[in-house]
Amino acid sequence: MSSTELVIDSQDIQFVMNEWLKLHELSKFPRYADFDQETINLLLEEGFKFAVEVISPTRTESDREGCKMVEGRAKVPPCLHKPYQQAYELGWASIAADPKYGGQGAPRTVQIAINEAVAGANLGLSMYFALTEGALELIDSFGTENLKEQYIEKMVKGEFTGTMCLSEPHAGSDVGAGLTSAERTADGRYKIKGTKSWISSGDNDLGKNVIHALLARIKGAPSGTKGLSLFLVPMFRLNEDGSVGESNDVTLASIEEKMGIHCSATAVLNFGENDDCYGYLLGEEEQGMACMFQMMNGARIGVATTALAVSSAAYQNALSYAKERVQGPHISKIRDAEAARVPIIEHPDVRLNLMRMKSLVEAQRALLYATGKYLDILHAAEDESERKAADDMLQMLTPMCKGWGTEVGLDVVSTGIQILGGVGYTQDFPLEQQYRDIRITPIYEGTTGIQALDLLGRKMTMRNGALFMNLLAQFNAFSQTHKEHPLLGKAIQKWTKSGEKIAGSAMTLQSILGQRGMEGSALYATPFLMHFSAVTAAFFLLEQGIAAAASLAAIKADKKVPEDAYAEFLQGNSEALFYDNKIKTTQFYVNVVLPTFEALTQPIQNQCFEALEITL
Amino acid sequence: MSSTELVIDSQDIQFVMNEWLKLHELSKFPRYADFDQETINLLLEEGFKFAVEVISPTRTESDREGCKMVEGRAKVPPCLHKPYQQAYELGWASIAADPKYGGQGAPRTVQIAINEAVAGANLGLSMYFALTEGALELIDSFGTENLKEQYIEKMVKGEFTGTMCLSEPHAGSDVGAGLTSAERTADGRYKIKGTKSWISSGDNDLGKNVIHALLARIKGAPSGTKGLSLFLVPMFRLNEDGSVGESNDVTLASIEEKMGIHCSATAVLNFGENDDCYGYLLGEEEQGMACMFQMMNGARIGVATTALAVSSAAYQNALSYAKERVQGPHISKIRDAEAARVPIIEHPDVRLNLMRMKSLVEAQRALLYATGKYLDILHAAEDESERKAADDMLQMLTPMCKGWGTEVGLDVVSTGIQILGGVGYTQDFPLEQQYRDIRITPIYEGTTGIQALDLLGRKMTMRNGALFMNLLAQFNAFSQTHKEHPLLGKAIQKWTKSGEKIAGSAMTLQSILGQRGMEGSALYATPFLMHFSAVTAAFFLLEQGIAAAASLAAIKADKKVPEDAYAEFLQGNSEALFYDNKIKTTQFYVNVVLPTFEALTQPIQNQCFEALEITL
Repeated sequence: MSSTELVIDSQDIQFVMNEWLKLHELSKFPRYADFDQETINLLLEEGFKFAVEVISPTRTESDREGCKMVEGRAKVPPCLHKPYQQAYELGWASIAADPKYGGQGAPRTVQIAINEAVAGANLGLSMYFALTEGALELIDSFGTENLKEQYIEKMVKGEFTGTMCLSEPHAGSDVGAGLTSAERTADGRYKIKGTKSWISSGDNDLGKNVIHALLARIKGAPSGTKGLSLFLVPMFRLNEDGSVGESNDVTLASIEEKMGIHCSATAVLNFGENDDCYGYLLGEEEQGMACMFQMMNGARIGVATTALAVSSAAYQNALSYAKERVQGPHISKIRDAEAARVPIIEHPDVRLNLMRMKSLVEAQRALLYATGKYLDILHAAEDESERKAADDMLQMLTPMCKGWGTEVGLDVVSTGIQILGGVGYTQDFPLEQQYRDIRITPIYEGTTGIQALDLLGRKMTMRNGALFMNLLAQFNAFSQTHKEHPLLGKAIQKWTKSGEKIAGSAMTLQSILGQRGMEGSALYATPFLMHFSAVTAAFFLLEQGIAAAASLAAIKADKKVPEDAYAEFLQGNSEALFYDNKIKTTQFYVNVVLPTFEALTQPIQNQCFEALEITL
Repeated sequence: MSSTELVIDSQDIQFVMNEWLKLHELSKFPRYADFDQETINLLLEEGFKFAVEVISPTRTESDREGCKMVEGRAKVPPCLHKPYQQAYELGWASIAADPKYGGQGAPRTVQIAINEAVAGANLGLSMYFALTEGALELIDSFGTENLKEQYIEKMVKGEFTGTMCLSEPHAGSDVGAGLTSAERTADGRYKIKGTKSWISSGDNDLGKNVIHALLARIKGAPSGTKGLSLFLVPMFRLNEDGSVGESNDVTLASIEEKMGIHCSATAVLNFGENDDCYGYLLGEEEQGMACMFQMMNGARIGVATTALAVSSAAYQNALSYAKERVQGPHISKIRDAEAARVPIIEHPDVRLNLMRMKSLVEAQRALLYATGKYLDILHAAEDESERKAADDMLQMLTPMCKGWGTEVGLDVVSTGIQILGGVGYTQDFPLEQQYRDIRITPIYEGTTGIQALDLLGRKMTMRNGALFMNLLAQFNAFSQTHKEHPLLGKAIQKWTKSGEKIAGSAMTLQSILGQRGMEGSALYATPFLMHFSAVTAAFFLLEQGIAAAASLAAIKADKKVPEDAYAEFLQGNSEALFYDNKIKTTQFYVNVVLPTFEALTQPIQNQCFEALEITL
């Protein structure tokens, strides 16, 4: 049943990739020359099939079983081993990795689409792929040729898994407070000592070795983030022939007992308890945070992808359930005990909830895939100004994808449970697990509050606000061009008004900064992020709506559909129906959903500071 | 640690009961003559202690262990047995029950306060008390003297537990579709046959018998809800001497595997599989729904109480954690790596989240306890017009307590997890379980959508809208009296404007009803409920704010506090600080929280119907 099985919204994804973003245009760059439309579509089709047929069946079992610590090592649920291997053998887990190491070299946006399917199938499992990729990219960017040769290919093949070791028991969001130390040795290696916590995929029995990308402070380095250096620290050392050798004194202290993502081992790791742990410097000394920052955008987009994945899966499950489940009469016949019972999708309250889910999922996807394309242009464009423009957009959009996208994900899944009612609360349907799994996404890789500070305090101030002004200018140009659009003009005018309030909020926050310092301006950073992101997502949705309207008009003209037969025609033409739905979904999002995010910023204009003034 | 243990907000509860509601005034009614202020306060103090010391320690273990089906019966986690018995021995579980059966006869509002503590300690366990109480009240209202004598006292003592059997596999929200049948027998009993599902406390080993209050259709009765009759159906028959006898052919088919409330057995029960199940009529034939409706307000207020309980507990845990957890420098020193690390309660984003939680919890409590007092007046007042006025308010407020209060509860607990960050996602803190437990509250006893239809379709139309107009008139009178209040005047003006939109929404919905029928007007029933409830809760909070301001002014006058020493004075006077906080919390709620609920109703004014027009 599609209310219990994974359904990928391939129609929306293909529209987004082919018709809206025109991702195949990336093939004009040498790096992505092989990725024409046909190749991309084939990849998506096969990747989605793999996620549905191979990964998805592991979701329930791997949740119930969870990771176990056995004889000092983490064991993942056995049902994951084969799908894990297949994901690497068939290339899905390394789809964006460099072909010189055995990867597929696909654009990031294609990887996002594949990951949407894989993480929708099993969020916990997808994390092993994501962490390994993050770690290998650090090695690729900052490692010596020798390190690259020894490690990367094995990670691209999934023989070794990877992690990012930033957090420590007393240094979570405050990475700079980390105490793990490194000491130069005569042979050029570094002796590592310390405890790292909250390490996703920190230990496991999926590969033969675990390769940690770890932040530590070289003795004598300054305190705070700027004293941190980045190291490659393998769990087991490699022999001369590259085979896995003796222990590197990295030990698993414990695995967290979590609400969800049970098949992902979140580990506390001890490094150098016996004074015998060695690491290799990545990049230069005291450049650890700068190196990590280069990865950060990718990692945050990765988390946003998983939030979209789970919320899209939840929407599809809830939609199917609402079509299958018969309960109560149509509301127009509510007093007629004999009236035929109808599927709950006919109940207005259920429709409102479904539309909330649908429009938020499509808004998440629009924002995320647009961001993915900028990442691709940054990686592939030959013209520096083109790369620079893409990077600017990427800086602005990434905290929105991560901050807003994950918060929206919680909302979507919770709404889905409400549609199912009592059964949504049981393990009989995927929503129950989706609700538990997705709750981590607004926390790790920087909480929503951190994303908001990143947007407001860092990104908006870059080059005197040029990145910010440029995005608003894009909004304005779009509004000018399309505000009289026959179908979407009214929505565009409404959206324009909401967008204008962003500049107003930003100016007010600036004046608050002058009067009350950072404490005052940071107070409403998250509401500002939420509103700005919602408006930006609407911008992309409206672009899609315009494209859909054009395609729909072309079909209507081609088929010579008379206006009075339009409704009937739609039911018989799935392509036209998709475009019509896209327009209505966009209107709904602007009319119904957007105002709720705008309302979050009312206290900025009204300058309310009770939260700072109260003694709690 | 108070971040892991239960903390009851007794200061707010006592303010609400003693200073705002003046609950002791109920002692003017004979029924509550014994409940003067001292007695009430003593009860609260002892009850809270019991919840913290006896019930709370069972929360974690009973969640991990859950209910098990063993040899055809449900077994609750063993750690619950003793606290369950003590709760009855000490009278907490039957605090509002009639003294003639051994109850304490306390006002409902006192019961609400005790239940806030008990359900905050263990939501799952509290359900056994609530269901038993609901069932015994049905027997008390509608049973023969013989049935009352046989059953009620044992239920008041917890020897027998009770349930409400409404739902069936294909009749959830649509109760009228139930198929369970009843057939009159020669001896005046009824033969019962059918399957009931989603039965909370449906089976257990806490008592010696399970007494079901069950809806069934007598053969030949009309279809729909109006053909249903109410029956008392014991799991085991009683012998002549009142002792528990042979099986009544009620069998446990299964227990649901749920996300939370693991220690509450949610059962599927088969009645009369061997054609040997007998029940006793409660009330008259075909009056089953009317009987149930009499209970409904109480049951819905009960669920709202549990949502408040869990969200208040979550707020207290998050608050304590934010005070204990040191992470990062003060934001004004964010670029200084040497700056002292501060407790996270000093971070603006955390403060905003804490204030969101605090103000929502106090708003929930204000709405719920006010409703409780109306319930008490309804039960105790001797003057019929006083009872009638109380009942009118109760009709309006109950769907708000249940619909809005439970949705708000989800928000509060989720915000708490965000404050804790990664640890909030682990089982090391109560938030993780609170998040899973509370998710059921907007579903059972009528989903939020059902509450919204109850408010909009039933309550608002009662007596041509008199109940609705009366509530708005109260808002208006309050606004007129206090809109120039020195501390709260601005908030009251802002609230008044939001309140005026309720009448606007109602009129628009009325005209939509004319144009598009019930389908159109029901579409935004839930947003309407959410906004109306948020405004009503603000009304009660503002009343509290006015009372707090008066008390604060009295203290300031009494202590002769000069304005420039006020801040310092507050820190040394916990009573004054409480009042000052109440005022700031009320302002915060009106300025920051209320607009987000108002925004939900924007599409009503704009008449957006995409959700009805789209083909999903």
